Amino acid sequence: MLVYIAGAGAIGCNIGFHLQKYTDSEVILLDTWQAHVDAINAHGLTVTGKIEGHLPMRAMQPTEASEPADLVVVITKARDLVAMMDAIKPIITDKTELLCLLNGMGHEEILKHYVDMARINLGVTIWSAGLSGAGQLNVTGIGTIDLQNIGGNETTGQQIAQLLNQAHLHVHYDDNVRWAIWRKIVFNGIANALCTILECTVGELAHTDTIEAMAKDMVLEYIAVAKAEGVTLDYDEMVTYLKDSAESIAGHHPSMYQDLIIHNRKTEIDNINGAVVKKGEKHDIPTPVNRLLTELIHTKEQLRGAR
Amino acid sequence: MLVYIAGAGAIGCNIGFHLQKYTDSEVILLDTWQAHVDAINAHGLTVTGKIEGHLPMRAMQPTEASEPADLVVVITKARDLVAMMDAIKPIITDKTELLCLLNGMGHEEILKHYVDMARINLGVTIWSAGLSGAGQLNVTGIGTIDLQNIGGNETTGQQIAQLLNQAHLHVHYDDNVRWAIWRKIVFNGIANALCTILECTVGELAHTDTIEAMAKDMVLEYIAVAKAEGVTLDYDEMVTYLKDSAESIAGHHPSMYQDLIIHNRKTEIDNINGAVVKKGEKHDIPTPVNRLLTELIHTKEQLRGAR
Repeated sequence: MLVYIAGAGAIGCNIGFHLQKYTDSEVILLDTWQAHVDAINAHGLTVTGKIEGHLPMRAMQPTEASEPADLVVVITKARDLVAMMDAIKPIITDKTELLCLLNGMGHEEILKHYVDMARINLGVTIWSAGLSGAGQLNVTGIGTIDLQNIGGNETTGQQIAQLLNQAHLHVHYDDNVRWAIWRKIVFNGIANALCTILECTVGELAHTDTIEAMAKDMVLEYIAVAKAEGVTLDYDEMVTYLKDSAESIAGHHPSMYQDLIIHNRKTEIDNINGAVVKKGEKHDIPTPVNRLLTELIHTKEQLRGAR
Repeated sequence: MLVYIAGAGAIGCNIGFHLQKYTDSEVILLDTWQAHVDAINAHGLTVTGKIEGHLPMRAMQPTEASEPADLVVVITKARDLVAMMDAIKPIITDKTELLCLLNGMGHEEILKHYVDMARINLGVTIWSAGLSGAGQLNVTGIGTIDLQNIGGNETTGQQIAQLLNQAHLHVHYDDNVRWAIWRKIVFNGIANALCTILECTVGELAHTDTIEAMAKDMVLEYIAVAKAEGVTLDYDEMVTYLKDSAESIAGHHPSMYQDLIIHNRKTEIDNINGAVVKKGEKHDIPTPVNRLLTELIHTKEQLRGAR
């Protein structure tokens, strides 16, 4: 089968690498970063860190993709999603499945304009990685992927999970993926925002004396908003999850840090903490802490002239 | 008369310089920074910035002060206040007046153990300055001082105001200095904390698109807590004051930034935003935004190994 990775950032490259290495799928990486595309076509993808390897791979601009896709793993930055989906319209048929792995939530509201809900699979991954250059992937944390078909078509969702498990991506078919998505929002809302504001690694943040007190108000806001959205998060379970996750990627700079501090790009804050603020407003639940974090990041973007 | 400046940081030096230059007072600067003391004794105090000048001046360690003081201008960092007052006990007589100009609030609770309340004058200044080296004062903003005798002894308070006005320090005797102190807490709580978290000048912060939305929640918390403390702050008036104050010291890095980012010293956050949080708790008023700011600064102190 033909699998496109729509967004060959760090996590996209990691999934593409695993699929090509361990399964019979044909994999094509799509990205708008031409130097990255060129490097992959010329020299293949080189992987360092928790996983090491090298594979010749195919890459191209999204607008160059032309063969009908069996599966598209959609994993752009949130603000690039519409442009990506518009660019790859030609490869989407009425049999194409989407697996959406973007950070944050609500992306199915965009994706449903491109495929039937029955072919939308939502996922969440806690693999962590960065690109150390064009064609250079650095895997900083071995993770997992939770996914679910949200159009009621569990069979295809299970098939996708099976394919990704063959690829050693540690996939779990999840009957309640929105819970897992919320849980990742809690982690990202804390780790991404704070590590970017304070310019530190996840481990440095996790080992401060202040992190528990600081995280408490945030977690309570997430729990309140998630509850209004029909998702039940348990406080103690979240704290344990946060600690375990932080330890597993202690040396890692989260993607938001990579975006703003390393690459001086605007962040996904509006799709993480900002999304919680918006959902809070909808339900009349105050979220002052997440609002401040969102505003601090936007202010930092502006002060640094992020693009 | 003999005036000691108990704490020859930037604002203390500025007040000492003016008193010595324009009045008949004998002025002695007290500070624990020996290189600063030595430089002032050897070369005098050099002033650059909005004011330029040079004067021979006397400086010494607080423990070296021995002559009975007529007036002590107390202007240490909050955490150094008790050590300073203990060190200068020998110069405090039953005629010594104190003028307390520390940032934050509640310092009279400490000072009343050293002199009668009738000799405590509380003040608040919006002069702004930094030390660019030992014996080197850089005045970044011409300001004012509001002061009041809080022991009901207006006469001596007025005399101190008169002396400082002779010294061109732009002093206003204030029948409600606690209002002015609160107003400065609002300014410092926003400008000091945010400029230190975001590492920018007051002007850079003030000119972002996000500052008004970001400051709103903070101002509302201050208004609520101040009200419970019997001090009425008006929202629109505060916003106007914040904007005007920010413009007047646009190029300035606030003292908290100087402490943490330049000198890697622990900050006064517990006496500004943290004090508001504590007073909020006393009155059962939630202050999540100020709590997060306090925790962010403490986390940043720890990440930088501030001492």
